[in-house]
Amino acid sequence: MVNVGVLGATGMVGQRFIQLLDKHPDFEITALAASSRSAGKKYEDATTWYLDDAMSDSVKDIIVSETEPSSVGNDVEILFSALPNGHAAIVEPKFAEKFVVASNASVMRIEKDVPLVVPEVNPEFLDIIDVQQKNRGWDGFIVTNPNCCAIPLSLTLKPIYDNYDINRVYVSTMQAVSGAGYNGVPSMAIVDNLVPYIAEEEEKLEEETLHLLGNLNDLGVTPAKFGLTTSCHRVAVIDGHTEAVFVELDQDIDIDDIKKNIANFKSVPQELDLYSAPKNPVIVREEDNRPQPRMDRNADGGMAVTVGRIRKDSAFDNSFKYVLMGHNTVRGAAGTSILNAELINKTIL
Amino acid sequence: MVNVGVLGATGMVGQRFIQLLDKHPDFEITALAASSRSAGKKYEDATTWYLDDAMSDSVKDIIVSETEPSSVGNDVEILFSALPNGHAAIVEPKFAEKFVVASNASVMRIEKDVPLVVPEVNPEFLDIIDVQQKNRGWDGFIVTNPNCCAIPLSLTLKPIYDNYDINRVYVSTMQAVSGAGYNGVPSMAIVDNLVPYIAEEEEKLEEETLHLLGNLNDLGVTPAKFGLTTSCHRVAVIDGHTEAVFVELDQDIDIDDIKKNIANFKSVPQELDLYSAPKNPVIVREEDNRPQPRMDRNADGGMAVTVGRIRKDSAFDNSFKYVLMGHNTVRGAAGTSILNAELINKTIL
Amino acid sequence: MVNVGVLGATGMVGQRFIQLLDKHPDFEITALAASSRSAGKKYEDATTWYLDDAMSDSVKDIIVSETEPSSVGNDVEILFSALPNGHAAIVEPKFAEKFVVASNASVMRIEKDVPLVVPEVNPEFLDIIDVQQKNRGWDGFIVTNPNCCAIPLSLTLKPIYDNYDINRVYVSTMQAVSGAGYNGVPSMAIVDNLVPYIAEEEEKLEEETLHLLGNLNDLGVTPAKFGLTTSCHRVAVIDGHTEAVFVELDQDIDIDDIKKNIANFKSVPQELDLYSAPKNPVIVREEDNRPQPRMDRNADGGMAVTVGRIRKDSAFDNSFKYVLMGHNTVRGAAGTSILNAELINKTIL
Amino acid sequence: MVNVGVLGATGMVGQRFIQLLDKHPDFEITALAASSRSAGKKYEDATTWYLDDAMSDSVKDIIVSETEPSSVGNDVEILFSALPNGHAAIVEPKFAEKFVVASNASVMRIEKDVPLVVPEVNPEFLDIIDVQQKNRGWDGFIVTNPNCCAIPLSLTLKPIYDNYDINRVYVSTMQAVSGAGYNGVPSMAIVDNLVPYIAEEEEKLEEETLHLLGNLNDLGVTPAKFGLTTSCHRVAVIDGHTEAVFVELDQDIDIDDIKKNIANFKSVPQELDLYSAPKNPVIVREEDNRPQPRMDRNADGGMAVTVGRIRKDSAFDNSFKYVLMGHNTVRGAAGTSILNAELINKTIL
Repeated sequence: MVNVGVLGATGMVGQRFIQLLDKHPDFEITALAASSRSAGKKYEDATTWYLDDAMSDSVKDIIVSETEPSSVGNDVEILFSALPNGHAAIVEPKFAEKFVVASNASVMRIEKDVPLVVPEVNPEFLDIIDVQQKNRGWDGFIVTNPNCCAIPLSLTLKPIYDNYDINRVYVSTMQAVSGAGYNGVPSMAIVDNLVPYIAEEEEKLEEETLHLLGNLNDLGVTPAKFGLTTSCHRVAVIDGHTEAVFVELDQDIDIDDIKKNIANFKSVPQELDLYSAPKNPVIVREEDNRPQPRMDRNADGGMAVTVGRIRKDSAFDNSFKYVLMGHNTVRGAAGTSILNAELINKTIL
Repeated sequence: MVNVGVLGATGMVGQRFIQLLDKHPDFEITALAASSRSAGKKYEDATTWYLDDAMSDSVKDIIVSETEPSSVGNDVEILFSALPNGHAAIVEPKFAEKFVVASNASVMRIEKDVPLVVPEVNPEFLDIIDVQQKNRGWDGFIVTNPNCCAIPLSLTLKPIYDNYDINRVYVSTMQAVSGAGYNGVPSMAIVDNLVPYIAEEEEKLEEETLHLLGNLNDLGVTPAKFGLTTSCHRVAVIDGHTEAVFVELDQDIDIDDIKKNIANFKSVPQELDLYSAPKNPVIVREEDNRPQPRMDRNADGGMAVTVGRIRKDSAFDNSFKYVLMGHNTVRGAAGTSILNAELINKTIL
Repeated sequence: MVNVGVLGATGMVGQRFIQLLDKHPDFEITALAASSRSAGKKYEDATTWYLDDAMSDSVKDIIVSETEPSSVGNDVEILFSALPNGHAAIVEPKFAEKFVVASNASVMRIEKDVPLVVPEVNPEFLDIIDVQQKNRGWDGFIVTNPNCCAIPLSLTLKPIYDNYDINRVYVSTMQAVSGAGYNGVPSMAIVDNLVPYIAEEEEKLEEETLHLLGNLNDLGVTPAKFGLTTSCHRVAVIDGHTEAVFVELDQDIDIDDIKKNIANFKSVPQELDLYSAPKNPVIVREEDNRPQPRMDRNADGGMAVTVGRIRKDSAFDNSFKYVLMGHNTVRGAAGTSILNAELINKTIL
Repeated sequence: MVNVGVLGATGMVGQRFIQLLDKHPDFEITALAASSRSAGKKYEDATTWYLDDAMSDSVKDIIVSETEPSSVGNDVEILFSALPNGHAAIVEPKFAEKFVVASNASVMRIEKDVPLVVPEVNPEFLDIIDVQQKNRGWDGFIVTNPNCCAIPLSLTLKPIYDNYDINRVYVSTMQAVSGAGYNGVPSMAIVDNLVPYIAEEEEKLEEETLHLLGNLNDLGVTPAKFGLTTSCHRVAVIDGHTEAVFVELDQDIDIDDIKKNIANFKSVPQELDLYSAPKNPVIVREEDNRPQPRMDRNADGGMAVTVGRIRKDSAFDNSFKYVLMGHNTVRGAAGTSILNAELINKTIL
């Protein structure tokens, strides 16, 4: 068993980490770090638990530690970070001197020597870790997972990108409120309403998706070359981000072939049979009215993205469109971070 | 005063007609027709009223008539039709033998000699009425308004189409539940959820929008030539359809110029100062987080479409994107039908 | 293994039966009956699945049978009925000639020789079965479970009723939309709204709760004698009925003693260790803001009722109040029906 | 015209004050005070407007002033306070040295010489103003309106209390999210959920309702003597608090007589024909499924409370029950405060 800890353990993504790590066969939570206000208390007493599943008994009595490398214990190997960006920027590098940091924060994603990875999409980017450790003189390192919309989008685009020449992609999102944190979206803003804007979301979604599908070389990552534009919106859904995707290829469309490539897509986590890896990263459904957040977000424990309505787009040559939906705090955040750690544990540590 | 009637008067769009016609300076409701089950009763007793505003006293005592030309009274000149398609196909032509029928049903929109009109977009299409009357030997005629998403989309595209060369348009909708009728969307389907499909909606939205922006000539209507693709979704909003729109032009973009053209757009209803015409058909807002259904759907009595987030799209050359929102049962249905009738009343009758 | 079937298998409560029976150690589904429209098809093809958890593979290929005793197979012993009342009234007695019928329908609950049972509350009422079989000359019999609000209310009142003298009970409910069936509550009726009325609900809730707490004797059931009044309301919640309960005793209040009696309540299903029996039928929480439907409805697989805010009521002598919440289609319907069958299987069959 | 100002003008209740005062025939807004962060800016620039109706042009250019008596201008006579309690406790007394303060804050309601008034219920309590001015040496004074649930409850109980002997009242509320302020209820807490607790709400509702129905005498106010208990809950409704009410009288019930007394109830504001006074403070509806927040909250501009389901309660002697619903930020807050000011303006100033 590898001892692991969670930074930002009392927040919503922190709780999702704890829930997903419960009964994990390889990782055991031994450290939970949070703000000074919580430090010193039992986790159960420090935390307002937000998830539908009850808090696991195994973490209730863990004493919350300060968010400092010296506080989490020497026996910890991996720290999952659910810290907000400001704090992550300061603290994650300190932890990385000694520990593996698998981070959901976006602040370090832009560093050239920090791998931004979705294990099914670009596992080879973990090779940058050597550079990172050399550059910075760290014994540990930081690995990051992308934005909650970029993860499911890249998972569905990967089998397309690998098999065809993508020319253009247009994406319009309908995102769940949990993506903004527990207090992020007031009910006054979303009941009988929607909000057509999420700060910095379109930038991240566009940049990170092209990065994930890009090419690692000596100069760093060369992003994928096709055009990608997005429009991001918040809707009255608790969990599950939905994206309407329009794709133009540089070649003729065989819609059945495309469906088959998406449905049959498997990658390294499936080959290595990693614990959190879904059987299929993307589930293709044939019903007209799927995917739906409430019906599909828990597919394969929330780690599979569901795609539906894959159809030819007669408005443009060589074009098709589809709708995807993935659990934003499982596949779109904590789950992918854990899958990264499982891949690292199996192949690097 | 012109005497008018409403067909399908007890349903949701029928009620919206009645609400919008209340205190109308030129139209007076003298006939309300519905199914045989309702016929013979006072409107107040025949109807479960669904709108937030209370039923107007002026219609409460009207005796509901059968949906037959002989039942609505000879003094009626215009009939607004909120009938479902199946019924509309049979009944509207009968009424058109004698009356002006302003219909919200989609079934007659495909007839070559039936004008499909948004008064600000293609008022000249009313010229087909002559052909229709000659073809069919009718004293009256049918005029139709488009689909609830095509109306606001065409209103925002019109000033773009008139001033630039549109190459491509991609649209993703987030539509209110009222669009499906009172019983159309079960709460089980939409609370904490969304449905990424609306039957036949994408087809109508694409075809009708290109038709509205098309060109009337001797052979009928030649649709606009640019590519238009859509993806339609239902969300947990009572009233107000939102659409994320991506536009590619065939020329350079001057985003301020585009904004100005949209914001300053006025057309025939504004020139004629029609009663239901909004001051501006499209209101441009500068805030990042607008338009929002609950905040903007009642702009100018629900007759103005609100547009926000008009921004350059750096992913593609000559491209920009925006978000629009319009009240789907006012501007997107009954309100446009009434505006059509006002235009006809002023220019034809 | 006992072979079981589900009547009304394609509807929402029918689906809940199937979900809860999946992997059951003693019951195996071998028959699924539905309307003639579905009969002859594979269950998977006949059904629009409404539940968040995916349909179990084990039922997908079962051929749906007609809702007739001759169609479900001779090897079936127990039939769970999720039929609507009208159909149940006709069909359930026919099935009971030969099979055990555990019914969620309300129509047979009023029959004097048909036991209305919540296993933790009044298991002894199963003794009426002998009378029923004798009266009607049946080899099988019918057992019913109560209304979805009466089940959790009776579960929380039972330990109070057994330990104190109840004088008055006032109940105000906030009920989930799933209680009305998939199409029961239009989204137009409940988004940004609530409906303060549910047909026949108050009558059932009052009558059945007093019946469950009543006394079985030679003349039938003598209902409990205290006054019970209710007001029933529908709110925008998918699953989980909440009830605000005000109780007046005929004796002094010791609020800690009351809490203890509710929290420690166990009964026959717990003693017999029945498979679907929750460890504690009622979970008492101390947080001010609990129970909440989304957080607590799945407690102990949805079979435990959660109670919070047990507090002295200073407005009246000898009074206290509390809030309860239970999953309305699990504990409040299919789950209690299955628990009845488990009790019958262990003690009678 | 009387010049008036609003304290806490940028918050949600402050905005409601401004909306309701727009086009007021007797009051003209000349001062808008808010926090130092806003002071000095134009109101339009200082405020994120939350209401569906657009901000009135007449206030957009008013320069926001500091919340100090010296800043609001000498020509102001009445200040409406939408301040939070902590600030109100400090600032309102300072303003009252010189101005009339009509406050929606709860902090001063408990002061013996500060009238807590609903104009239709206890207008005579304004007589305490003299005592207040004498006690405190103020030229102005403070008048307060009650809690958002106590206002509609007292309005419906008043005609009952005046005509019968009330023995007991049990109330269970279902309250809108706007009552907690714009950021008060996170969407994560209320979508597909409800919260069975609102801090201090039950205490205020019970105490203030009995106070309003009480008796003013030389010793102050003697509260009404009947027992009143409440349970308060938050549901997914934007505006409109609903209350299920159970009443026991000390005498026989004539349900038609009770209905008539409630429906015909009029009081001083109706007699004086005050501008904001609804024609009937309480509207009685006969439909089973009313009142509903979305349908009834705007009745008579949001100033009328709607009552439905008035019915005999067969569980107890001399008992009946009903459901009420009122707009919580109009009738339940700013609207009653303005009505208080209108009454004062007509009878005292």
